[in-house]
Parts: sequence; structure tokens; C-alpha cells
Amino acid sequence: MKVVVTGGSGFLGQRLIRALVGRGTLARDGEPERVEQITALDVARAPAEFQDPRVKYMHGDLTERAVVAAAMDAADSIFHLAAVVSGAAEADYDLGLRVNLDGTRALLDVCRRLPRPPTLVFASSVAVFGGDMPEVIEDFTTPTPQSSYGVQKLIGELLLGDCSRRGYVDGRAIRLPTIVVRPGKPNAAASSFASGIIREPLAGVESICPVDATTRLWVMSPQRAVENLIHAHETSSGAWGSQRAVSLPGLTVSVREMLDTLRAVGGDAAVRRVRFERDERITRLVLGWPARFSAARALALGFEGDRDIESIVRAYAEEHAR
Amino acid sequence: MKVVVTGGSGFLGQRLIRALVGRGTLARDGEPERVEQITALDVARAPAEFQDPRVKYMHGDLTERAVVAAAMDAADSIFHLAAVVSGAAEADYDLGLRVNLDGTRALLDVCRRLPRPPTLVFASSVAVFGGDMPEVIEDFTTPTPQSSYGVQKLIGELLLGDCSRRGYVDGRAIRLPTIVVRPGKPNAAASSFASGIIREPLAGVESICPVDATTRLWVMSPQRAVENLIHAHETSSGAWGSQRAVSLPGLTVSVREMLDTLRAVGGDAAVRRVRFERDERITRLVLGWPARFSAARALALGFEGDRDIESIVRAYAEEHAR
Repeated sequence: MKVVVTGGSGFLGQRLIRALVGRGTLARDGEPERVEQITALDVARAPAEFQDPRVKYMHGDLTERAVVAAAMDAADSIFHLAAVVSGAAEADYDLGLRVNLDGTRALLDVCRRLPRPPTLVFASSVAVFGGDMPEVIEDFTTPTPQSSYGVQKLIGELLLGDCSRRGYVDGRAIRLPTIVVRPGKPNAAASSFASGIIREPLAGVESICPVDATTRLWVMSPQRAVENLIHAHETSSGAWGSQRAVSLPGLTVSVREMLDTLRAVGGDAAVRRVRFERDERITRLVLGWPARFSAARALALGFEGDRDIESIVRAYAEEHAR
Repeated sequence: MKVVVTGGSGFLGQRLIRALVGRGTLARDGEPERVEQITALDVARAPAEFQDPRVKYMHGDLTERAVVAAAMDAADSIFHLAAVVSGAAEADYDLGLRVNLDGTRALLDVCRRLPRPPTLVFASSVAVFGGDMPEVIEDFTTPTPQSSYGVQKLIGELLLGDCSRRGYVDGRAIRLPTIVVRPGKPNAAASSFASGIIREPLAGVESICPVDATTRLWVMSPQRAVENLIHAHETSSGAWGSQRAVSLPGLTVSVREMLDTLRAVGGDAAVRRVRFERDERITRLVLGWPARFSAARALALGFEGDRDIESIVRAYAEEHAR
């Protein structure tokens, strides 16, 4: 089978590709198939892209139809991870629309013309929720996004759902929690600090926390996110029925709990490297996201959350030390 | 003030324009302003367009940016009624996306560049709901559209909400019930029959009912729809807050009740002109729409439904006789 990963040079894309190569197979309609080729489509070139004879890198813009069509040629499965992240989509409305909406639409349009409807896993986000929300988000809670990123992700879910209903794709959208600990450098996601306040101090570098210590987040580790992306692909189409989006399980953690964990893993010196410097723009975006979900449907579909924040941080520290 | 009505040659557009000219004023931010000019933008030319020195007709495609920009020049208020209707959007996916999604987006994009954020009233639809639904749709019920038309209307609501949050427009989306009795000819809306089974028999013409007599619909008269469009414009921005879409009050009526009313107004001979001939495609679309709403928020915002189906049919018959 041929797999396409949009955002394939990103950290999650790279991890997913490595996992797919490692497994060698991916189930579709309950049948494991050999992963023969993976096309990683990304506008950016990663500093160190994972190399394997099965992996082909294509660098181009998701909004250019010819690029998308070339990448998707004969694709059986697509993991659509490419996006303009929350902070950037809020700062540049046109850019967010162009990539998050038009890009997703271009992808669906190409999918529709493939010889066989592909399986399409779409990385959506908890940012589809916002504003006045119940303490715990249930599967039936109405998404009311309060950021352009959240609106664009929700529109992606709706288009994916309609294209699935019409039989153009077999779509599955998973609403990812905030991923911690992301490796690499801070990015334009409003939640970038959530990784930064662990990653930088462990590397001996100072980090700024732009939100209060009481701020709570709904989080998931990169390992678990990749497992859940693959699981989303491997679930049967019938299990999704007419509702093609689901909120994933995660962990509710406060910034304070993250810093307590940092102390347990990296010592007092690490925690002292975190400086609180409130940023109103980031605080507003992050406080607008829900920090707790029932995730009942996702659990029933077999998705899993992480055990605790300490195992997440220790896994990162171990991997980082290697 | 300058008002733009998209879909201005349509039956609702024409009625709205006549009402605006009749009133002479329209309140914005609580202050009545003189309606100095109305631009009716429509791809089609109506058989008999309402003529008044204040009304200017522009015939062009909503998806052509130059057309939209010219129509919207210096607009203070927009009533966005233009759409590819339900049956047509289901039959031609690309056409629905182009008009209902790209058209709405082009409109919002032009609005954003106006010197002052305009008031934008968007005609959404009960078709944003569908599939597994509670018996009564509440304001907090999650829209789960099961038609491309419903998906596209919901995406329009989301874009309108985001553009309102960003301060580009002062948007208000009202989810219109099925409008009965529409004058004129049958159209490609799946609900077209709901008017047809009254309109045609009263004119001595046979009409086909493609759904069972027990089928229930959520309906509103054209008069009330126009009053509610104007009311949506005249409500204060603050009353809408961050939630810019609302389901309007209506009446739950079964096809049987409509035929009973037809008998009361037009006699047995009229009812005998209705022939049941089930159409699976239409039945599936129409049964997918909800037939009952609490509409609590709309009522609190001052929107009103019709008194009963008989007054709707009598008003149509009277107007038709004139």
C-alpha cells in the first residue's frame, strides 16, 4: 500500500513515518497490508529527515493542486497532519484559511478522484472547543471554537465527514490534545510553552511560561499521539458510522504539576530555569481551550491516553539523553 | 445606508427588498437609519423584479470576486440569502461548494476590507441538523448535518462567527425553517414539495407529494421569514455575544395537517389534486431534518414564529388571489 503523510517533515509526521516503517504493515478494513511506499509531503524540509528506501520526500505547498495531486498519486491511505498552528492562524487569518481550509479541501478534492476511496486520518484539535464550556467536554458537547485555528479544524472535520458520507473517502478525524513534550524549538502554537517549560530546562536552557501556574491543559505524549493516529487508521469504517470526528483521551495537568514533574526528573536547578512572564494573547487562547474530556466514545473505539505526566516527561528525558 | 441583498432576485430576496423599501429605515446599533440604496445581487434575473428608484439590480456570480466587490462597495448592511439549494447541492457537490462555501467566503473577504465592519445577516438552515437527533432540538444540540447543503451552511455559520469575533463583520446567522408557501415554480430544494402541495392545488394544478403523509416539517411563512431577517439585523450586537447563529422558532406540521388545511381553504377538489408518489432521495433528505426545536434563545432574542398553518395558507391564498 501507498501512504501519504502531509506535514511529513514535522515532528509528529517524522515520528509517524518512523513507526510505519518499523511496523512494516498497516491494517485497512481489518486486513494488514504491507507499507510499500510513504510519501512525506511538507512545505518545509526538516533538519534531519528520517531516511529509508520506502520513504520519499516531496517539498511543496498543500494549496498547490499539482503538488497535492502528484503526492497523492495512487495513494491508499493519507495521514493529514499539515497545518498552520494556532498562534500563526490567529496572527495571519489569510494564511490559516489558505492552508488549513483550502489545503484540506484540495486534499479531499484529489482523494475524490482516486481510483479507490482512500482512508484519511485527519489530525484535528481540542481547539474546536472554546468559550463557555461545561467543566468536562462530553462527546455530545457542541464545538464552539474561539480561535481561527479551531474554526478551520472544525471546518476540516465537517468537509471530511461530508466526503465520507458521499463515499469519496473513508475519513476519521481525531481531536488531538496538546502534545507534550515536543522536541526541537518553540513554534507558533499558543501551546508551545507546554513543551518548552520541560524541554528547555532539561537542556539547561531558560524557558518562559506565559500563563499562570494554575492553567490546566489536556495533554498527550508524542508516542501516544502516533499510536492513536495509526489506531484511527486501523479501526473499522463501520465503527465510526456517520460521526467521523472524535475527541481523544488525554491527561488533565496544570502547569504547576508539570513543574513538579520537572523537579522530580530534572531537579531543582531545572525548575529554576522556568520564568513566569504572562502573555495575554497566549493566555487568552490557551484558557479558551478545554482541559478535561470524558472521551467515552474514543475509549470505546479503542483509543488510549497516557498513564501520567511523569511517565511522559521521563520518556522524553530518556529519549533526549540517547 | 446602503444595503446589499444577495439572492436578491429570489422570492425571499424580492420580498425582503419590498419590505425594506416599504419601511424606509433599518436600525443598526439601535439607531434607525434611512435606507438610501439597495443592491440586489443575483446570478439570475427574476421574471418580475420589484422596481423602485432605490433598488439597483446587479446580475453576476457570487464567486467572482470583482462582482462581489462591486456590489458591496460602501455597503453598511448585507443580507446574504444566495445559495445553491439542498437538492441541487446534493446532486452537484462542486456547485454547492463553489456557491455556498466559496461564495460566502468571497463575501466575507470583501466585507473585511470595507471601511466599517458591516452588519451581515446570513440565511442559514435547519439542515445544519440531521442524523441521530433528540426529539426536540435545543439551542445546545450539536449540529450534525447529513447533507452537503447542511454542511456548507454550517461552515458559513462558522466563518461568519470567526469573522465576527475578529471584528471584520457584525454577523448574525438565522437558521430558517422550511418556508411555506413559496410562490412560483417548484425548485431544486428537497423541501420544494411542501409549498407545491398547497400552491399547485390552489391554482387548479396537480401536485406530487414525494414523502409520506406522516412526514413532519418545521415551517415558517415567507412574511415571518422576512420579518425575522429584518429583526436579525436590528437586534443589538451585544445580544448575540460570541454565539452568532440561532435556530428560529417555527411550526411543526405534518403533510397530513397541511392537506387538512388545504381542504379547509381550497375544498376537497384541491386535496384531490395531490398525488402521493414516494421519492426515496427526497424522503431521505427531508426525514434527515429535524421537525421540532425549542428555539428558546431565538424567542429570547425577540424572533417570532407563525401562529398556525391555517393562517399561513390563508395568507398565501389571499395574496395569490390579488
